[in-house]
Amino acid sequence: MSKQTRVGFQGERGAFGEVAAGKLMPGEAELVALPNFPALFQALAGRKIDYATVPIENTLYGSIHENYDLLLKHRLPILYETNVRIVHNLIARPGVSLRTVRKVYSQPPALGQCRRFLERHKKWEVVPYYDTAGSVRMIVEQRLPDAAAIASKAAATIYGGRILAKDIGDDPENYTRFFLLGRRRLEGSHSTGTKTSIVFATRNLPGALFRCLSVFALRDISLSKIESRPLRGRPWEYLFYLDFQGNPASGPARNALKSLAEITEFVRVLGCYSTIP
Amino acid sequence: MSKQTRVGFQGERGAFGEVAAGKLMPGEAELVALPNFPALFQALAGRKIDYATVPIENTLYGSIHENYDLLLKHRLPILYETNVRIVHNLIARPGVSLRTVRKVYSQPPALGQCRRFLERHKKWEVVPYYDTAGSVRMIVEQRLPDAAAIASKAAATIYGGRILAKDIGDDPENYTRFFLLGRRRLEGSHSTGTKTSIVFATRNLPGALFRCLSVFALRDISLSKIESRPLRGRPWEYLFYLDFQGNPASGPARNALKSLAEITEFVRVLGCYSTIP
Repeated sequence: MSKQTRVGFQGERGAFGEVAAGKLMPGEAELVALPNFPALFQALAGRKIDYATVPIENTLYGSIHENYDLLLKHRLPILYETNVRIVHNLIARPGVSLRTVRKVYSQPPALGQCRRFLERHKKWEVVPYYDTAGSVRMIVEQRLPDAAAIASKAAATIYGGRILAKDIGDDPENYTRFFLLGRRRLEGSHSTGTKTSIVFATRNLPGALFRCLSVFALRDISLSKIESRPLRGRPWEYLFYLDFQGNPASGPARNALKSLAEITEFVRVLGCYSTIP
Repeated sequence: MSKQTRVGFQGERGAFGEVAAGKLMPGEAELVALPNFPALFQALAGRKIDYATVPIENTLYGSIHENYDLLLKHRLPILYETNVRIVHNLIARPGVSLRTVRKVYSQPPALGQCRRFLERHKKWEVVPYYDTAGSVRMIVEQRLPDAAAIASKAAATIYGGRILAKDIGDDPENYTRFFLLGRRRLEGSHSTGTKTSIVFATRNLPGALFRCLSVFALRDISLSKIESRPLRGRPWEYLFYLDFQGNPASGPARNALKSLAEITEFVRVLGCYSTIP
């Protein structure tokens, strides 16, 4: 991998998307922080970056629908997936101790996931901030003497913060599934990928979704996820996003997709990929 | 209906939840504004209100997952459903004209749904605010001479604002589906309801969801919606919320639910209800 390879993620340096980039794109790569998900997809489509790490679902929060919609809008294939354990830490600038903390900054979902820890410190004021890693940067740069932030260990390292309490989340089963997106399919991915993501629209008939799932069930193909999203301009009709075990190059999955195309309005393969442990 | 009947909704007076209350609960009822969805469910469970209007999905935004989770957490049956067309209006205090507007306040989703209208006015600064109706109240109360807000017609009426431009949303097919929740099922609802909402967890087996849908398909029962949510504590497993046409008191739907109970870990009926046009 050349040094010029650029991997984009959403958030400030030290965001969990950057942690995902470390797993999905090991080796030398330039990391590019983008302010939001539309900007991230746009940067990849417009060749400003070569790859993007995109969170698609979290075990506590659920699906990140904005990214499902963006996968449909852009044609940027999924190359790999990985799961990142979301470990929240309480971080302050050096010299600040647990006893001097009075305010805690972070993104609202991170604050919500550390509710029990925060409730043990009744005197702390909880302040919503636009980004987890960004809240560490802010309290360190502004040299706040009574503030802490909740973010990744990577954010503490990058901005010179000190971890006052580690792994403070309420629920240890807090994982986010990330995709690595590129502009073109990996060469040979159709022979090595083990999981496939597709999107399709059913015909508006009774039993339509059941028929669509039958093309997989009749071939013993396991589904790992189904997600519905509204179809724009057709109130109360839906698009379905489906993940299944298999590779469209192999017999059963290829036949399943062929049958699915017969009975749906449209089908698109979003990617066939391997899971990075 | 007695004058003491109290209907709660989320947001400030003039929110779309209040518009839904007007359709779902015609006649004399005291309207109670609650600051957020957990508080709304809590108020109903704790007998501070008698009914609650709860948005469950929007044709542009998709499902409101927080409320799916709250339907599971509380046992508050769905009594009726209705669809409310979301009509966004540009509102200012009397005396302010289109030409003097420099700032526009509203909730981010409402601002996003009026993007094309706002882009025609390059000089306007767009300012996110926590509530649509609340932004009208704020600009009127603070007598802002150069500000407008985006909200419902009801909000303009309640706070004495003037509509400068009506129905300014990008997409006319903007509807929100609302439930009316109570503490007990309506008497006789099991004979008059035409639609049923359930939640269930599949056994973790290949083809599990397909089997679950088969109990409806084999009986020609139409599904109108399926939604998945993460199962807490069991990463990458899901709960399914399903809406179908039918009444659990009638033969086919009753048999379908009986079969579903056989092959799932749990099933719960969230309500059987009619649609208010």
